[in-house]
Amino acid sequence: MNQRYSIAIHGGAGTIRQGEMTPEKQNEIEKTLNRSIKAGINILKAGGSAIDATASAVVVMEDSPLFNAGKGCVFNSAGFIEMDASIMCGKTLDAGAVTCVRNVRNPILLSQELLTGSRHVLLSGKGAEDFARKAGLAFEADDYFFTRHRYEQLQKAKTEETVQLDHSGSNDGKFGTVGAVALDLAGNLAAATSTGGMTNQAEGRVGDTPIIGSGNYANNQTCAVSCTGIGEGFMRSVTAFDVSALIEYKGLSLTEACEYVIHEKLPKVRGMGGLIAVDIRGNIAVPFNSEGMYRAWCQQNGEVHIGMYRE
Amino acid sequence: MNQRYSIAIHGGAGTIRQGEMTPEKQNEIEKTLNRSIKAGINILKAGGSAIDATASAVVVMEDSPLFNAGKGCVFNSAGFIEMDASIMCGKTLDAGAVTCVRNVRNPILLSQELLTGSRHVLLSGKGAEDFARKAGLAFEADDYFFTRHRYEQLQKAKTEETVQLDHSGSNDGKFGTVGAVALDLAGNLAAATSTGGMTNQAEGRVGDTPIIGSGNYANNQTCAVSCTGIGEGFMRSVTAFDVSALIEYKGLSLTEACEYVIHEKLPKVRGMGGLIAVDIRGNIAVPFNSEGMYRAWCQQNGEVHIGMYRE
Repeated sequence: MNQRYSIAIHGGAGTIRQGEMTPEKQNEIEKTLNRSIKAGINILKAGGSAIDATASAVVVMEDSPLFNAGKGCVFNSAGFIEMDASIMCGKTLDAGAVTCVRNVRNPILLSQELLTGSRHVLLSGKGAEDFARKAGLAFEADDYFFTRHRYEQLQKAKTEETVQLDHSGSNDGKFGTVGAVALDLAGNLAAATSTGGMTNQAEGRVGDTPIIGSGNYANNQTCAVSCTGIGEGFMRSVTAFDVSALIEYKGLSLTEACEYVIHEKLPKVRGMGGLIAVDIRGNIAVPFNSEGMYRAWCQQNGEVHIGMYRE
Repeated sequence: MNQRYSIAIHGGAGTIRQGEMTPEKQNEIEKTLNRSIKAGINILKAGGSAIDATASAVVVMEDSPLFNAGKGCVFNSAGFIEMDASIMCGKTLDAGAVTCVRNVRNPILLSQELLTGSRHVLLSGKGAEDFARKAGLAFEADDYFFTRHRYEQLQKAKTEETVQLDHSGSNDGKFGTVGAVALDLAGNLAAATSTGGMTNQAEGRVGDTPIIGSGNYANNQTCAVSCTGIGEGFMRSVTAFDVSALIEYKGLSLTEACEYVIHEKLPKVRGMGGLIAVDIRGNIAVPFNSEGMYRAWCQQNGEVHIGMYRE
């Protein structure tokens, strides 16, 4: 029995620019990050699994309008919301993931249902929604997911003809992809990630979040990783698995592996963003090459730390 | 300038059982494999790119009813066909992929259009089909894709309530996922893969084929890989990228890396299938842990070899 747990969460690498952050906004985001990580910690403390802890932490952020996942999702170019999520168990290497789902309240819980209850790893669109219905998961009408600032972000992006990173670079783009990684008392790792993608993205665009090995990965031999940023760079770099491979095959430490993929490899494919990772000894790394990354972590039963920008 | 090219193709790891193969069937499959690899070789000989060579080789198999890709796709449990494909350039690490597309004649050409003409790596469903229309790609009506034996396979699978590997284990299931890897005269690698998934799979099920790092990967630092088999095992193992990582970080040879992932790692997640790979020096590996894998290869301007079962 492992004597200590560790957990880290992120609320996206595309943050509100530091110069545009207000104390009120900062307080609101920090409070939600704190609620999210506490949800995970409570499960870990009670001897619960890393899978349950990461899913619970992600649910808190999916239920908040502050992040680009669940309720706070951005709009695609066709004017509606499509969500992606994935979760992986480091002990069994079982994984569940969904892409292009609509109206499912908590895509991370749908991913967890797939992990435990399906022979398939990844379901898309209507097939994923059918599975959610059979599993009895909550659905919400479109207006639940409607947030005015997201709609305004889309109009602005359309005018500028750009695809915005979840959030970054926009005055009113305050939010991001969410994720959690944890080591539980039984010594098992898990990673969970959930997103609405990028404002003004093409209908049907799939980013790195539901891709096992790119946006999310967990393996008890090495580490658990959840990524955030412009997904295409993470997909071309197979970033989450790469961290694990650098530890397993090259003998790098968690921090060395994470720093290398974020600061050396990702920029070579014009990649921008960050990740959170925890290794099998409870070490945590939270590197990013963007201006900021909303994050919180609690290492080996210690204090909760919350960060938003570079320190 | 590299003086030699290499190319390998596969027509799936789930082959007709050796005892049930007839000389006529074998001849038909071998002829198509030969036409496919020759399409690639002709491009490579003329100084064309590995991307064009692998795409052309795959198109030949997509246009044949003999393989589970394009025309010969299997049916999902809802009774229709959804196709996945991906292609990756080892020089730039650019990639294009599609999932859950219907009625597109050549999903590999759609992937190639995405590689060159989109900021996105992976498009799903209607969004991918919209992109295909804008790119002027050929569409076919449902009856083009209808093959009686595929329909019978579905009825049989429904009766047995199983999900069949592309093809394996069924008396009349003669075909498989297709793929190609190549090294061109300019020293660039590419990998291309295309599939209809598994008979009786859930609507919206996404396998390893369109997942960069799992079913398909290319990197000029190491190798190009295309996988075939039960996709979930390859997704949980991140197999294609793992071959590359074992070469880059652990110093394994191409053959050592391929043998390790297919015979050691894949069985640990109940994975079944095989892969084809070519490294930057033109070496080729074609390992599989299934009864057979339809395959052909031509190493460093040498002869064309064709294989179906263990040798």
